[in-house]
Amino acid sequence: MSNNLSIKPLADRVLIQPAPAEEKTASGIIIPDTAKEKPQRGSVVAIGTGKKDEPLTVKVGDTVLYGKYSGTEITIDGKEYLMMREADIFAVL
Amino acid sequence: MSNNLSIKPLADRVLIQPAPAEEKTASGIIIPDTAKEKPQRGSVVAIGTGKKDEPLTVKVGDTVLYGKYSGTEITIDGKEYLMMREADIFAVL
Amino acid sequence: MSNNLSIKPLADRVLIQPAPAEEKTASGIIIPDTAKEKPQRGSVVAIGTGKKDEPLTVKVGDTVLYGKYSGTEITIDGKEYLMMREADIFAVL
Amino acid sequence: MSNNLSIKPLADRVLIQPAPAEEKTASGIIIPDTAKEKPQRGSVVAIGTGKKDEPLTVKVGDTVLYGKYSGTEITIDGKEYLMMREADIFAVL
Amino acid sequence: MSNNLSIKPLADRVLIQPAPAEEKTASGIIIPDTAKEKPQRGSVVAIGTGKKDEPLTVKVGDTVLYGKYSGTEITIDGKEYLMMREADIFAVL
Amino acid sequence: MSNNLSIKPLADRVLIQPAPAEEKTASGIIIPDTAKEKPQRGSVVAIGTGKKDEPLTVKVGDTVLYGKYSGTEITIDGKEYLMMREADIFAVL
Amino acid sequence: MSNNLSIKPLADRVLIQPAPAEEKTASGIIIPDTAKEKPQRGSVVAIGTGKKDEPLTVKVGDTVLYGKYSGTEITIDGKEYLMMREADIFAVL
Repeated sequence: MSNNLSIKPLADRVLIQPAPAEEKTASGIIIPDTAKEKPQRGSVVAIGTGKKDEPLTVKVGDTVLYGKYSGTEITIDGKEYLMMREADIFAVL
Repeated sequence: MSNNLSIKPLADRVLIQPAPAEEKTASGIIIPDTAKEKPQRGSVVAIGTGKKDEPLTVKVGDTVLYGKYSGTEITIDGKEYLMMREADIFAVL
Repeated sequence: MSNNLSIKPLADRVLIQPAPAEEKTASGIIIPDTAKEKPQRGSVVAIGTGKKDEPLTVKVGDTVLYGKYSGTEITIDGKEYLMMREADIFAVL
Repeated sequence: MSNNLSIKPLADRVLIQPAPAEEKTASGIIIPDTAKEKPQRGSVVAIGTGKKDEPLTVKVGDTVLYGKYSGTEITIDGKEYLMMREADIFAVL
Repeated sequence: MSNNLSIKPLADRVLIQPAPAEEKTASGIIIPDTAKEKPQRGSVVAIGTGKKDEPLTVKVGDTVLYGKYSGTEITIDGKEYLMMREADIFAVL
Repeated sequence: MSNNLSIKPLADRVLIQPAPAEEKTASGIIIPDTAKEKPQRGSVVAIGTGKKDEPLTVKVGDTVLYGKYSGTEITIDGKEYLMMREADIFAVL
Repeated sequence: MSNNLSIKPLADRVLIQPAPAEEKTASGIIIPDTAKEKPQRGSVVAIGTGKKDEPLTVKVGDTVLYGKYSGTEITIDGKEYLMMREADIFAVL
């Protein structure tokens, strides 16, 4: 996982490298195929500095769950990432 | 009930293990079949740290009532859970 | 009226046992049949702890008026109740 | 005008006894028939305790103007009243 | 201009006596006929006490400009007035 | 440019005299014809006193850019002006 | 890159000179053609003074990513720029 990216998210934004589809985690979490909005899993690779009185909770390296349609796609060095606000992240695994 | 999950909800989010459908509680609560939006019952298995000035009210182990369409489905180790915000929970039983 | 229910509403939520339809109160209040949204009458059987700086105003035992379509139906021990926010209650009788 | 009603509006709600239609006030105010939303006149018969930092401005006995479609109808002892929020009242006459 | 009206606007509301249509002011302001929403001119005849931390800016006697569709019409002693919030007033002439 | 107008905008409102269409500025700014919402240029001729804790940034005499559909047209002494909120102004030239 | 423009954005607005389409950055970032809302890249050429308690984060000279449909087009000295709020900027590269 590359986290030496030359990109700095602003404020409460977080850059995430999505996990390959269908992958199982060490703790055995699988995202069901039938859910209307399937949560997705990925690794945090860059974070903003937070909002005025609220530093971010997630850290670079965290594996996180987020909504299927959250964030904006961006390609860096041939890899796909997602930029989203921390409020769009459900949980840290 | 397993509450040693390797998942940490963010902020005001709560992870709930839904009770089997039609189950009665010790206190005899049944959810009517005819209600437009039937409240559902489940056990809290993981909670976030709350918002800045507002710690969460529910605790791991609480049995809670919530709206039928609340939250996002997620499967962990073959069991189905729901991730929702505490504001979507109606009451603790 | 049973107010020893094993259910604890969260925050500003209130559990109400609706009065039988068409019933008159001691003070002679009748809900008109022709009103677009007829207020309903019921007894408060359980209340939440309020919001951060705002304790609730209604108490267990109060008879209250509320909107016809307010709240979520729930059945406990064979009796029907309504769970709603205090802001949906118009007045205490 | 009866203001000994056994009803206590909550928070910023006000109970109003509407004046008979077409009635003139001592100061000669008439509500025009052609206005899209005709203001209505009535007497305040019961008031709430206000919101946290904002006590109510109107008092029991005040004659007030309010929007034609404001409030919820309620019948007490055979008389029609309107329950509305103080913010729906335009002015005290 | 009569400003001894027995009407007291609430909070941030202002009672305005509209100027006759097409009238010119001393400073030569004319409202164009072709504007989508023509500003209107009138005299302030009664004002509320403002909101909690914000006293009103306009005074009784001020000539003000406001949006064509602002406010609610009301007739007092045979004269037409408009009741509106101060935020609907553009400027004092 | 006349800035001795007998009109005082309220709060955060600003009165602007639009520049003639197609005019070039000294710094060579041209507004493209093809933009969906072309910014417009004009001179500030009168300003309000700002909101409670926020004085206005623009000054009388400033040349400003604003959205094509911002503000309300008003004619004073035969000249056309625009009344808008400072938040609708993009920049000072 | 010209950053001696005679234009001063207000408050939290930022003036950006968009990068030529399809250009690669030194760090190899490419914006995928298939994304629904492709992020765009550009250089900050002028910034506002921020909001009351929140100075801006981006500086003149920063290369930033922003949404495809963000901002308002403006032409200065024959070059195209975009005026947008800092909140519409995703990240600094």
